[in-house]
Amino acid sequence: MRSDCGQPAPAGSATTGFDDLPGVSAAVAASAAATAFAGVSTTAPTQRRRWLEAVAEALHSRAELLVALAEEETGLGEVRLRQELTDAAANARYYAAVGEGGGWLRAQAQRRTGGSAADLRKAHLSIGPVAVFGASNFPFKFGVFGHDTCAAVAAGCSVVVKAHPAHPRLSRAIAGTVTAALDAAGAPAGTFGLIEGFTEGLALVQLPEIAAVAFTGSQSGGMALVDAVRARPLPIPVFAEMGTVNPVVVTPGAAHSIEPIAAGFVESFTRGGGQFCTKPGLLLVPRGCGAAAAIAAALSSRDGVRLLTAGISDAFRAGVGDLVAAGAEVLATGGPADGEHVVRPVALSVSPDVLRQGSRLLQECFGPVGLVAEYGHFAEVGEILSRMQPALAGSVFSADGADPDVSSVVAQLAGRTGRVVVNDWPTGVACVDAMHHGGPWPATSRPDATSVGADALARFTRPVAFQNVPDEALPPALQDANPWRLVRYDQEGRPW
Amino acid sequence: MRSDCGQPAPAGSATTGFDDLPGVSAAVAASAAATAFAGVSTTAPTQRRRWLEAVAEALHSRAELLVALAEEETGLGEVRLRQELTDAAANARYYAAVGEGGGWLRAQAQRRTGGSAADLRKAHLSIGPVAVFGASNFPFKFGVFGHDTCAAVAAGCSVVVKAHPAHPRLSRAIAGTVTAALDAAGAPAGTFGLIEGFTEGLALVQLPEIAAVAFTGSQSGGMALVDAVRARPLPIPVFAEMGTVNPVVVTPGAAHSIEPIAAGFVESFTRGGGQFCTKPGLLLVPRGCGAAAAIAAALSSRDGVRLLTAGISDAFRAGVGDLVAAGAEVLATGGPADGEHVVRPVALSVSPDVLRQGSRLLQECFGPVGLVAEYGHFAEVGEILSRMQPALAGSVFSADGADPDVSSVVAQLAGRTGRVVVNDWPTGVACVDAMHHGGPWPATSRPDATSVGADALARFTRPVAFQNVPDEALPPALQDANPWRLVRYDQEGRPW
Repeated sequence: MRSDCGQPAPAGSATTGFDDLPGVSAAVAASAAATAFAGVSTTAPTQRRRWLEAVAEALHSRAELLVALAEEETGLGEVRLRQELTDAAANARYYAAVGEGGGWLRAQAQRRTGGSAADLRKAHLSIGPVAVFGASNFPFKFGVFGHDTCAAVAAGCSVVVKAHPAHPRLSRAIAGTVTAALDAAGAPAGTFGLIEGFTEGLALVQLPEIAAVAFTGSQSGGMALVDAVRARPLPIPVFAEMGTVNPVVVTPGAAHSIEPIAAGFVESFTRGGGQFCTKPGLLLVPRGCGAAAAIAAALSSRDGVRLLTAGISDAFRAGVGDLVAAGAEVLATGGPADGEHVVRPVALSVSPDVLRQGSRLLQECFGPVGLVAEYGHFAEVGEILSRMQPALAGSVFSADGADPDVSSVVAQLAGRTGRVVVNDWPTGVACVDAMHHGGPWPATSRPDATSVGADALARFTRPVAFQNVPDEALPPALQDANPWRLVRYDQEGRPW
Repeated sequence: MRSDCGQPAPAGSATTGFDDLPGVSAAVAASAAATAFAGVSTTAPTQRRRWLEAVAEALHSRAELLVALAEEETGLGEVRLRQELTDAAANARYYAAVGEGGGWLRAQAQRRTGGSAADLRKAHLSIGPVAVFGASNFPFKFGVFGHDTCAAVAAGCSVVVKAHPAHPRLSRAIAGTVTAALDAAGAPAGTFGLIEGFTEGLALVQLPEIAAVAFTGSQSGGMALVDAVRARPLPIPVFAEMGTVNPVVVTPGAAHSIEPIAAGFVESFTRGGGQFCTKPGLLLVPRGCGAAAAIAAALSSRDGVRLLTAGISDAFRAGVGDLVAAGAEVLATGGPADGEHVVRPVALSVSPDVLRQGSRLLQECFGPVGLVAEYGHFAEVGEILSRMQPALAGSVFSADGADPDVSSVVAQLAGRTGRVVVNDWPTGVACVDAMHHGGPWPATSRPDATSVGADALARFTRPVAFQNVPDEALPPALQDANPWRLVRYDQEGRPW
């Protein structure tokens, strides 16, 4: 951009087309989203793909400003944030393509086969305006225009996002970027809206226009929304993805290679300040394998970590205190902890006996803390896992080659988590079709739902069957002419 | 069967292998179901198909006794009950085949494509022991061995059924039949269990072994289970399918053929004593089309109807009284109402103005009552529909040929119901792949779920992703050798 006076052009100048967009009231945003919904849901998925791709483009074109704002408000570091913006734009393109593919509509027909049989067609239609509550820890990927927003628009829904208070300026800047790009791409006004503040957020989920809620964050935040929705005259689904203690088991056969595992554990529970919902929360190792010393050594070289907000760093210090009060002992710390919201990463050791009794030890502490427990007999692993709350993910580290203990741990984790990993850390979630980012409560409020991957669109749909409905009155997904060019089959498996 | 003394052999004789099976305690049944689950879920779907088919066979072989018991306890009539048993056995075979097909597992792979990419595989695994609460109105199809039980077993889950108090002897007889057939077919002990009584039912859904709840019945019953499950330390999904007022719209263009519509309306809201969750509850007709006289004429030839229980007939009389108190007027009645639990079918007329105000008018009254409202301007239809609670199903009757009003009503009904029907009644639900028997609350507690059709299995599954898990530790559905012979694809759409 040309700027004769040598100053960078202000954000929101006419030449960029971007204005930071402050939030409106919940009522105004929901009303606009409801008006937009008819247009969004009946627009061909191919066109909605273009809207999302336009936003991805716009995020890139405004990356300098957005990353700088994110760094100011989160302290997550420019390198990480630049990558996260790039990933978020790629995810938008991914959901756009999934939406265009149309598999999420699950269109099918039971075509008339005789005089008396009905013509029955079924599709998962767009559910309505969606309220999205993003997370603090991924301001781009799980923020104003993260997985939930993209999946909802791809599934034909309008969206109202509640800005996270940890990054209000970034939220406004992204909202402005999204709105301008959607407008320019021809999306209906109201396809996307932003609101701000706790009170407006609670008001939003009570409004009759809102048809579903998606949330990423803490258990207390998610359950507050679940409770708020229960008070509605007509309840709606709440898809809350919440924090859990993700267990990692080192089998006896893997004990000989504990050093790289210990280093990986420290790296994983401190990455992003330990502010990942998939960080390893509890490492179960064979007694006497040297894990404690290896973890202490790895942690000693770690610096203090700046957390997202003063509230989160306060909660972290209190949470570590609670863990110690519940019977955990400090194994090692990194440091120092100088500066605003900066804390020392810490590894805690805990005995299996204490774990079996102390429920506080088995609840998430957001931030750079990891628990380590040494088991004597391998059967203790099963007992401990059965005491833990279900989780988003869990891992097993095994011996090279065949390890007789892997299958039993995989089966146990499969019964209690949404994703089971072998010989790697659960930390981080790839945005691909076969991903499942979810799990039984308290990992999520809806154990069948994922907030990442192709199936993320399913949350924002509702199946409807059409019986003997004339073609012109059917939704496009079910019309004979197949105007959306979906891959569809009838009851005999014939393309239809 | 030979019986020297000329008496029919008692049910449960050694030669039949059937014993009536009284319920056990919730704790005993849940514990047995939990023990059985490991075996049920890892048994090949092909084998589970044989279990369900064996039960279907056993239902037929004991049909005389079961139908006689059902008639004694429900008064639904031998013809209807014999057909319902036949349908229930056919449904068991249907779910058995759907289970064997394996599409419900939704197995998919994101196979390793480079050095750093993960091998990610995902399937919907069997969720665990399922608690089933059957309905009073379909003692076979939605009873002890109805849609929910069959779908759960087909999806690899063990089941504990709570017997409906309206038909306790039939429930025990079916339970004995199911248990003997499953045993003989080699299913693990505990695959199926029966409990009895309100207290045991509430206890059942609180037990840690239970992983999901399926219910068919009233709003109050369904919501009581939803509330009971909320009190669990670890919540689980409750799939409650509840009663609704299903609207039927007659367009202005269809007014000239009101007589057959009126006759069909009366036939539909009195069928099975009006005890169908899909009965038409409200008929919206153009003013002055003669619907009132035609309905009165059709109803005058109807006899009194025996309802399922004294409680239901009392509730029906009270419900009709409430409707009249809320502003409805008696348009016509059938009769007489002599005999135990016998009531007069009744049509009530109500003005659109009263409908717009009276919420009581828009809640289900179980039994043979139908509301009729005459609209002046067609726009009133939209206003009334928007005031109603969402419903399981809705219909439109239209003019022959193109009718300009059909599309708008279909679109409105699609936004508020689970199934939209044109030129037929919503009453009755075919058990086919493309069926959706569900809808937004209060039709169901989970608007994405159906209790009939192939997707009914999805309720009893939970997705899990497996990342870099060695083949021998994967569940059969995801192993390279594909031991369950599922149709599976990888990320490129290649068979896998």
